[in-house]
Amino acid sequence: MKLATLKQGGRDGTLVVVSRDLARCRAVPAVARTLQAALDDWTACESQLREVYEALNSDAEEWQPFDEAACHSPLPRAYQWADGSAYINHVELVRKARNAEVPSSFYTDPLMYQGGSDSFIGPRDAVVADEAWGIDFEAEATVVTGDVPRGATPAEAAKAIRLVMLVNDVSLRNLIPNELAKGFGFFQSKPASAFSPVAVTPDELGEAWHDAKVHLPLVVHLNGKLFGRPEVGVDVTFDFGQLIAHVAKTRELEAGSIIGSGTVSNKQDDLWGSSIEHGGVGYCCLAEVRTYETIEQGEPATPFMRDGDVVRIEMFDRAGRNIFGTIENRVATLKG
Amino acid sequence: MKLATLKQGGRDGTLVVVSRDLARCRAVPAVARTLQAALDDWTACESQLREVYEALNSDAEEWQPFDEAACHSPLPRAYQWADGSAYINHVELVRKARNAEVPSSFYTDPLMYQGGSDSFIGPRDAVVADEAWGIDFEAEATVVTGDVPRGATPAEAAKAIRLVMLVNDVSLRNLIPNELAKGFGFFQSKPASAFSPVAVTPDELGEAWHDAKVHLPLVVHLNGKLFGRPEVGVDVTFDFGQLIAHVAKTRELEAGSIIGSGTVSNKQDDLWGSSIEHGGVGYCCLAEVRTYETIEQGEPATPFMRDGDVVRIEMFDRAGRNIFGTIENRVATLKG
Repeated sequence: MKLATLKQGGRDGTLVVVSRDLARCRAVPAVARTLQAALDDWTACESQLREVYEALNSDAEEWQPFDEAACHSPLPRAYQWADGSAYINHVELVRKARNAEVPSSFYTDPLMYQGGSDSFIGPRDAVVADEAWGIDFEAEATVVTGDVPRGATPAEAAKAIRLVMLVNDVSLRNLIPNELAKGFGFFQSKPASAFSPVAVTPDELGEAWHDAKVHLPLVVHLNGKLFGRPEVGVDVTFDFGQLIAHVAKTRELEAGSIIGSGTVSNKQDDLWGSSIEHGGVGYCCLAEVRTYETIEQGEPATPFMRDGDVVRIEMFDRAGRNIFGTIENRVATLKG
Repeated sequence: MKLATLKQGGRDGTLVVVSRDLARCRAVPAVARTLQAALDDWTACESQLREVYEALNSDAEEWQPFDEAACHSPLPRAYQWADGSAYINHVELVRKARNAEVPSSFYTDPLMYQGGSDSFIGPRDAVVADEAWGIDFEAEATVVTGDVPRGATPAEAAKAIRLVMLVNDVSLRNLIPNELAKGFGFFQSKPASAFSPVAVTPDELGEAWHDAKVHLPLVVHLNGKLFGRPEVGVDVTFDFGQLIAHVAKTRELEAGSIIGSGTVSNKQDDLWGSSIEHGGVGYCCLAEVRTYETIEQGEPATPFMRDGDVVRIEMFDRAGRNIFGTIENRVATLKG
């Protein structure tokens, strides 16, 4: 089943069920007006939403054309957005670039941060920021949970996964060093993220969803040029069950919590071999190519995003069909 | 105006207007069913809510008795909870206890962390945690904002303050060192917080609200014994306008965002002089008395909270009337 949120209808938008091919959609006010409302009462809503979905797919239902550009993030605002850094290769590169070791605990204890979730941007909205802040994207896979009790095991947590989405976790790299030095984690350096137009139930991924992981490449274009296509299910140290269980160790999680696994990163040899043009799988953020440059050349060469730059993030099934719709965020720089 | 949320009526509870003396209340489904709904549409709701409030105060309105024990936190779940550490005395003590300096930037650049907000506990709920985690309370003042545009100045941000609340920002001290060492800030060490039964508009504080600060003592009892009564408006390095502006530097804040100023702490001389029994104003968290003990005696002596321990947090006006109702959280330890 595929679900999306149109921007019309208030702060939380309007829930629509979307056909598998992303061509048609239908609002379902009699079931749930918003995605959060559906998640709040999933047991009651799920089968009704699935009925609409099946009818939409067979063209038996009244429908309207689905317009990704009219979408907000599936949850325009959420109560919880916790993001991990589960691709340890990315952490290794970042540490290597600053001559630091990766603590051994990082291979067993997930690195996660508490994100801000009150006001996401839409999948086609501009990223409005100051170029001096070092504007970067991070392409990731995320899940949306139902209620998760405190102390849930990874297996229990995995069962609470309701939906899968992609995200552009916008990062302001030049604000990070000062914030992390203060010791309390990210804040200003992690502004509003953009999620994929469509959220899908895990079964929608078929064989590409198992072991609480997504097993497909994440495809990233920068200004129309392929920039990355790493496998989401490869080199990921923790699955979503483990990440959710980490978050729920000392608190219960409420329905609609979004959990991310961090910028996707496959282990590759070097700057040359990792790039798309030389046969690598590329990168899901600018910071990663900059760490290769720093390690091999002493300093980063690739600039962060500039005014008008566009990042596009998508995932295709093995038959080449777009699963989640397209995140496409253009940078609109603030004039100081 | 005073507002509260009864636990009945779903995940977000039921909004009630509460009389100034906390004796009476009334649900207002025709205006807004939940506090978030009222904040989402404050311009339309505020005057109607104030009318009910005035009628309740003059006993002219139909009402039901107000029962603080039936309350959830005013926002049972919120989209944003950002907490500061604006009482630099607390930071100085913590750093001194571990022989570290306070960076000079801490006096001009607020120290804030992104809290989790998906599932708060109620003002009279138990804090369920493992004693080994080092269970502590932090008594604080907080504000709830309306919409705040990105880049708002402190003066603009201060104008967006809609409500004031107290909070017990539950902290798991023994989990903090490992989390902060990982570099991404708090997560498991900051479980669900409890807010005061009642949220009040700033005007309700009269002369005790000016310069975007609360100017009254915060009164903390531990197991029935006075533990702290520091002045909230004293020794606070940043006012709420500055804290909100910090949070809104790179992102807009949506209505219903909760901003805290951190555990209240007045500058005092030493362990002896700071304690209530020797004429001091005491402390708003156990960690603070433990830092005095560490500094003067080499190690902490006061234990963290144990099974059955109760913290009570209140604020009284100059005439001795309880403003926000009483937070009273008992520790119920998890059996491992």
